[in-house]
Amino acid sequence: MESQTAPFIGACLSQPVSRTPVWFMRQAGRSLPEYRALRGSGSILEAIGDPDLATEITLQPVRRYGVDAAVLFSDIVVPVSAIGFGVDVVPGRGPVVAKPFRSAEDLKRFRPMDPDVDIPYVSSTVAQVAAELKGSETALIGFAGAPFTVASYLVEGGPSKNFALVKSLMHTDPELFAKLCDQLADLSISFLQAQVAAGAQAIQLFDSWAGVLSVAEYQRFALPSSRKVLAAVASMGVPSILFGVGCSELLATMATSGAQVIGVDWRIPLSEARERVGPGIAVQGNLDPVLCLGDLEVPLAATDAILEDAGNLPGHIFNLGHGVLPETNPDVLTEVVKRVHERGRAGVTA
Amino acid sequence: MESQTAPFIGACLSQPVSRTPVWFMRQAGRSLPEYRALRGSGSILEAIGDPDLATEITLQPVRRYGVDAAVLFSDIVVPVSAIGFGVDVVPGRGPVVAKPFRSAEDLKRFRPMDPDVDIPYVSSTVAQVAAELKGSETALIGFAGAPFTVASYLVEGGPSKNFALVKSLMHTDPELFAKLCDQLADLSISFLQAQVAAGAQAIQLFDSWAGVLSVAEYQRFALPSSRKVLAAVASMGVPSILFGVGCSELLATMATSGAQVIGVDWRIPLSEARERVGPGIAVQGNLDPVLCLGDLEVPLAATDAILEDAGNLPGHIFNLGHGVLPETNPDVLTEVVKRVHERGRAGVTA
Repeated sequence: MESQTAPFIGACLSQPVSRTPVWFMRQAGRSLPEYRALRGSGSILEAIGDPDLATEITLQPVRRYGVDAAVLFSDIVVPVSAIGFGVDVVPGRGPVVAKPFRSAEDLKRFRPMDPDVDIPYVSSTVAQVAAELKGSETALIGFAGAPFTVASYLVEGGPSKNFALVKSLMHTDPELFAKLCDQLADLSISFLQAQVAAGAQAIQLFDSWAGVLSVAEYQRFALPSSRKVLAAVASMGVPSILFGVGCSELLATMATSGAQVIGVDWRIPLSEARERVGPGIAVQGNLDPVLCLGDLEVPLAATDAILEDAGNLPGHIFNLGHGVLPETNPDVLTEVVKRVHERGRAGVTA
Repeated sequence: MESQTAPFIGACLSQPVSRTPVWFMRQAGRSLPEYRALRGSGSILEAIGDPDLATEITLQPVRRYGVDAAVLFSDIVVPVSAIGFGVDVVPGRGPVVAKPFRSAEDLKRFRPMDPDVDIPYVSSTVAQVAAELKGSETALIGFAGAPFTVASYLVEGGPSKNFALVKSLMHTDPELFAKLCDQLADLSISFLQAQVAAGAQAIQLFDSWAGVLSVAEYQRFALPSSRKVLAAVASMGVPSILFGVGCSELLATMATSGAQVIGVDWRIPLSEARERVGPGIAVQGNLDPVLCLGDLEVPLAATDAILEDAGNLPGHIFNLGHGVLPETNPDVLTEVVKRVHERGRAGVTA
């Protein structure tokens, strides 16, 4: 089983590895000229629905950067869109919901997802990518949205600045919000089961906006449904990463979610993040993607500082602290990967 | 000197007080019907420039809520606007800069501000408000922008999502960025000197966007100029509050800035914030303003939790974790003030 000895998988499990692994959130997509050349003007959900296209997009950054993991080209709203909730992904804006979730009546708009029928293209893409990566040290990461973050889109109707509607719903009708999150947990579980069954070797659960919550809110309203998803992933036998932006104060709680890895952004030094998540939990991060926009010296110096701070303890996956920005020069990321592979020594045995 | 025994001033100095003081960032402004009735369609900078109008707007929330402090109706871009940098405040958007700061050439656009000539209306407003509050326990807070946050507007040209341009400038030309921040520090010092000379009894330095910086970036690029401003304020003999959003990881560093009070948002429990700022520094916060949008039970329960967490140590000023949202029902804030005065016991002696 080559895949089990891959640096990425080893790092997920806080084991010694042959090199510090690196990948980038949103490595597949708008920042790559080969992606822009391939994609027409169709919607992103259409591209996700085309296994040949999605396979190629997933593999583009692997070929270009030599990253240690491919991440499935998909979107966290694929399941809700697939069951007909009426979600579209608007370029430059994000997920937009025609008729937002507002009351118990809207629970009726959910139904279980049958991956074979509703999202057959996901399994096809994963299987094709897995076949391409077979025998290599490059792992394949699947992903899903954490219930709170998906709920925020459904309730707000789209990207939000202050998350007023979703916070209002959770506080004024916690029972309804829990039911919504439970529906979303089940959808994410189906989504991830399909990916793991088709060959995904690890998964990342994106709770991107959890950082807008207080610790008490996170524990009460977001953690239970994320735990449900992560317990299901554990039973699938693959490691999981839980990620959010601006979640420094939530790290100790996130470390109790069942994930083997916690993704952190640049707001907290990795060494401090490690203290908070405690022993046996790996950390992923945490280069500020904005630093990759300018001259090469800036991201390389920041990369060095992160590797230095991470030290030589096992259980560090290098990544950005948030997704690759569309205007990033890919050559910068190529050099960051080289630098991590040259200088990273997180649990490196050789 | 009634003013020195006011609960707000006592709490700033971490002294025992007769009640936990409370005020709200942006308490004066769009959420108040009496404000909307008073203001026409003119720009906010015009309203700030009219001492009678600005005095009335500053006092409106004091009358309505019975808060422990008035905060001058003004804006952090008043100084840069006054020296002719070309900044306007666009309703619903924020400060917009016609010709952003991009190179050393733009340093020539700065000149020292002479408050008597450039912003006479500020001193007039402060003096009028101070006269109205004389003999009461209501303190008068002046404020200015911290250099990093004002610089972010000047460099980005307006509100920013990822602060790419300002981060790029600080990393690629740290010397120029330091010069820019030094100019802005001097402007903030003049702005604050005028306010204190006219009767402001405390000041708040808004480094609202510092939370986008890593700890290392904050220490290198933001802290030095804020320290310069706060040292100048200390020499004026009034206490100071340093505030930013999402700054949990910066609190220990902010506590070394020279401010007597550190403002925190809802992302970190006050008890934890106190640990980080250390003894002798007061904390201000930290109710999520979004919670004030809905039913009264939610903000009152959150207020109780904050007061409970704050405990009975001196040095807590109750506030929101960010400004009052325009759509807030003022009656909710009235009830929050009542609750804080009833149940707050931070250093209460009686």
